[in-house]
Amino acid sequence: MNKELAALRDKIDDVDKTLLHLLAKRMTLVSQVGEVKNKYGLPIYVPEREQSLLQSRRKDAEALGISANLIEDILRRIMRESYINEYDKGFKALNPQLRPIVIIGGQGQMGQLFNRLFTLSNYHVRIIDRQNWHEVSHAVADAGMVMISVPIHKTEQIIHQLPKLPTDCILADITSIKALPLQTMMETHAGPVLGLHPMFGPDVTSLAKQVVAYCDGRQSESYQWFLDQLQVWGASLHNINAIEHDKNMAFIQALRHFTTFVYGLNLFEEQVDLQELLALSSPIYRLELIMVGRLFAQDPQLYADIVMASDENIALIKRYHQRFGEALDHLENKDKQGFIETFLRISEWFGDYAQRFQQESKTLLLQANDSRSC
Amino acid sequence: MNKELAALRDKIDDVDKTLLHLLAKRMTLVSQVGEVKNKYGLPIYVPEREQSLLQSRRKDAEALGISANLIEDILRRIMRESYINEYDKGFKALNPQLRPIVIIGGQGQMGQLFNRLFTLSNYHVRIIDRQNWHEVSHAVADAGMVMISVPIHKTEQIIHQLPKLPTDCILADITSIKALPLQTMMETHAGPVLGLHPMFGPDVTSLAKQVVAYCDGRQSESYQWFLDQLQVWGASLHNINAIEHDKNMAFIQALRHFTTFVYGLNLFEEQVDLQELLALSSPIYRLELIMVGRLFAQDPQLYADIVMASDENIALIKRYHQRFGEALDHLENKDKQGFIETFLRISEWFGDYAQRFQQESKTLLLQANDSRSC
Repeated sequence: MNKELAALRDKIDDVDKTLLHLLAKRMTLVSQVGEVKNKYGLPIYVPEREQSLLQSRRKDAEALGISANLIEDILRRIMRESYINEYDKGFKALNPQLRPIVIIGGQGQMGQLFNRLFTLSNYHVRIIDRQNWHEVSHAVADAGMVMISVPIHKTEQIIHQLPKLPTDCILADITSIKALPLQTMMETHAGPVLGLHPMFGPDVTSLAKQVVAYCDGRQSESYQWFLDQLQVWGASLHNINAIEHDKNMAFIQALRHFTTFVYGLNLFEEQVDLQELLALSSPIYRLELIMVGRLFAQDPQLYADIVMASDENIALIKRYHQRFGEALDHLENKDKQGFIETFLRISEWFGDYAQRFQQESKTLLLQANDSRSC
Repeated sequence: MNKELAALRDKIDDVDKTLLHLLAKRMTLVSQVGEVKNKYGLPIYVPEREQSLLQSRRKDAEALGISANLIEDILRRIMRESYINEYDKGFKALNPQLRPIVIIGGQGQMGQLFNRLFTLSNYHVRIIDRQNWHEVSHAVADAGMVMISVPIHKTEQIIHQLPKLPTDCILADITSIKALPLQTMMETHAGPVLGLHPMFGPDVTSLAKQVVAYCDGRQSESYQWFLDQLQVWGASLHNINAIEHDKNMAFIQALRHFTTFVYGLNLFEEQVDLQELLALSSPIYRLELIMVGRLFAQDPQLYADIVMASDENIALIKRYHQRFGEALDHLENKDKQGFIETFLRISEWFGDYAQRFQQESKTLLLQANDSRSC
């Protein structure tokens, strides 16, 4: 028995080693693609190429009797690695004549990320942070762009403290709220103004497929090159006005982070046995526990700032709490029918999204379970 | 320019086609492994083999200058497909002498899943459901095992309505609460009794790495073969007493489903623009929205049953709601310091798990973003 199995396993190992060599070959080709793209300033993420490649290989797979989803999942994973590879090759500067870029708060994690991206694209970058704040006047005197990358609660104050910038200098920020910072930048600078919100953290491996929301301030023609540059880096842009942005962020950030916080608080107060809970978890609960737990590995100041950024955020969270209490009434009255009716009303409102999400979640949950080891 | 890029892309396509043939070859080998395992009754999921295979290929990858995580992710995905492949080959019956297995509620989704697994393992299965309930006495008269797979709120009633079973017949259920069903089975049947809770839904592609919690009832030596059989199918077993099980499920199921329900309710009451929210989502919020939305593609009765299964569930949800209100006080008093202190206390309680979850979430979020298309 062991002999039969061992022989087959050796053959499988050989196949896997061949696979590795094939991957190495593909990565070399991808590097060459990166060089070509770099030369011509082409975006690293091209949705159409990705789609057509996937469609062709899915068809080939079906012809060979292999699962089309298998090859799609593998190729998507390989493409993620390819984006990192192209990223390392550097990028063409779309505005090579630009005077120096000053990143205020350039020692922070997001500041470092943008520093790396600008530098990979041959822009001249100057970092201003707490310890060299005294150099700020000198640094911005001939700047082509000033990017504010500081904690939320310091943003407005720092913008007010900026020395006068050259009139044609672009003033941009990357704060995760937009109305107040944008307004402050508009008041303090008469030239081009742009509000950005990168919808990702500093630990992304590349900007491919990552969303950057942006709010136009003033003289958009002067910073169009920068929006194009973000796309060359792989980002997907989403234009929105600052008020709408902040309304959406009340859900995406404030309410989300706060409910996650309370979720963790409740586990703590109940003194649950995390190990037992993990061992018993369904894939979906495991995923939830991971998303709750990860919050507490991060900086509480950031979350306090985001949640308490506005009275609107707090009002939304209060409405949520109240609705929770109302829904609880169904339970206390053992009113299954009421619960079911509300549920169906919400299902109807979700419409096609419910089905679509269920389909997508299936893939994600299978992926989450692939790496389960405990 | 287009020529250079097109030539490289053709070469990449050739590599990907070779990859497909390699996958086809691997799947053939895996089928042969499945046949050997089937012959000897070996489990389809062997954690040690998986670990050693991954470790060897990671080392090989590093030697070739390829990311070790890349090959690990790809191999894990391939192995998931391999389990499905082995699954299709059928399984050895560990108790081939067993008299027929009767699945009560065998037309339901979970009932069908177990029917398939038993049949793939050459057991003789009989299905009893609403439309042939009148045949139940005849069906169980010579049964070796009776498995209850009916909606939660019907479980006890159905167990009470069962005709007398042969004394050596195993009575098992797969309800997602355990104390009451187990107690009811113990009262109505004098022979072997086993409570099971498969921690997965009917849409799993194989049982590999899926958790099955089980509570011993009576005469565990008579159903040991069935626990072994579950492992042959790939499942990971977790023994627990029924009270502890239900306590954990108050978190894993009742509180989780209810908070998800309220999350959806809140989006509905606020009449958010889901499309805008999705377009602006960070990978983590997108994941959350998917997990909320998927609930509403499912059966509200199931969730009503799970949430209202016990007074303890409702009491836990009430405590959660109260803590939410207390935490809200931080916000209303603009008490950032208080929020931060509580946050840090919870972080400390999570201990190493917070870091571990952050690490694991990074992989999962990257995976979730791989398939982003909008």
